[in-house]
Amino acid sequence: MYNSNGVRRLGNKRKVPLTVIKRLPRYYRYLSELFKNDIGRISSKELSQRMGVTASQIRQDLNFFGGFGQQGYGYNVEYLYNEIGAILGLNKTRKMIIVGAGNLGQALANYKNFRKRGFELAGIFDVREDLIDKEVNGLKIQDFKSLEGFIKENPVDIGILSVPHDQTPSVAEKLVSCGIKALWNFSPMDLKLRQGIVIENVHLSDSLMTLAYKLNRLESDDINC
Amino acid sequence: MYNSNGVRRLGNKRKVPLTVIKRLPRYYRYLSELFKNDIGRISSKELSQRMGVTASQIRQDLNFFGGFGQQGYGYNVEYLYNEIGAILGLNKTRKMIIVGAGNLGQALANYKNFRKRGFELAGIFDVREDLIDKEVNGLKIQDFKSLEGFIKENPVDIGILSVPHDQTPSVAEKLVSCGIKALWNFSPMDLKLRQGIVIENVHLSDSLMTLAYKLNRLESDDINC
Repeated sequence: MYNSNGVRRLGNKRKVPLTVIKRLPRYYRYLSELFKNDIGRISSKELSQRMGVTASQIRQDLNFFGGFGQQGYGYNVEYLYNEIGAILGLNKTRKMIIVGAGNLGQALANYKNFRKRGFELAGIFDVREDLIDKEVNGLKIQDFKSLEGFIKENPVDIGILSVPHDQTPSVAEKLVSCGIKALWNFSPMDLKLRQGIVIENVHLSDSLMTLAYKLNRLESDDINC
Repeated sequence: MYNSNGVRRLGNKRKVPLTVIKRLPRYYRYLSELFKNDIGRISSKELSQRMGVTASQIRQDLNFFGGFGQQGYGYNVEYLYNEIGAILGLNKTRKMIIVGAGNLGQALANYKNFRKRGFELAGIFDVREDLIDKEVNGLKIQDFKSLEGFIKENPVDIGILSVPHDQTPSVAEKLVSCGIKALWNFSPMDLKLRQGIVIENVHLSDSLMTLAYKLNRLESDDINC
């Protein structure tokens, strides 16, 4: 649940650009580090130096959610950390399942940061007989056929798709028909948005292409020196 | 190498915001689909509808690189596809190695899209004896001890780090000391930028937190209905 401030702010439905939303997890990560290190207060300038963004961007971003800061006093780290967590919905536990227990699915199942953020892996499924019943991070891989029954017994918030490309649309349909409203898709095809379903498509090669761009720039700067 | 247009444009060193750069791979993916489907020309309006961004953003973004479009005629798909590819440096082959051959490293080694974009996996390394000599996607996992010798014989552009959190800084140091200038880091700690090195830190949980935010919004909209 949002706290009362959060509800009021979001209730206004001031449109928050997706680019701002996408920066919130990063603020959250940095604040989590500061909080762990017992830092009580931080200026937007200090935070900006740590994060490598401008102080004005930080102020602008946080203003979408009411600001949180007092001019000249900086931000209260714990407060801001909790508020951004609440905005992101990290103050409630989300149950997830993974469909596709190949290397990527198993890597995701073993990822420790998810639980820390309130995401709990409830099940992992595959069609491959050599994978079924194998244990990954304390969970036995289940037959994909038992998915529907499992979800009836265990409400699931988020379905993670780490299945081959050509199976992605049908697995997504299946998850949605079982009542899952949030899909985290790792196949290199964008699942299309539809009413009442939210999706995050992860394109690993986009990040690699960005790196290639940076490397190109670096090399061309070298040549120009 | 950039084509001559690319060199001239980038030679101007007009500062391209990182947010724009980060959108280029997405343009590239969409254009690649259009090109494969023999679509010769597309208006910014059509492209914007497919991509779910505004036409004005597309025009703004592409203007950083000289535009490519003619008013009223739309974009030449093949030309734009090749130009963005050249800007991203995808017209040259980049050699990569993976350090850390656990589930994630193996998943990355098996990822088919990288080669399609001109990234070639040259080697995969680990310290774990039970993994060394295992074959992944046609490559034998090598002992991390042989990394330095390998790089001397086989120039490497990009080092992919899929090692545990606490080993990330030392492995990064090692790769840099061997002359690798681009690091793609999958551990949940940001490697810091330094002179002459480019880095992309992948934070999978950022994407998951964004999904949690969207799910929260969806649910609060439901409640408000």
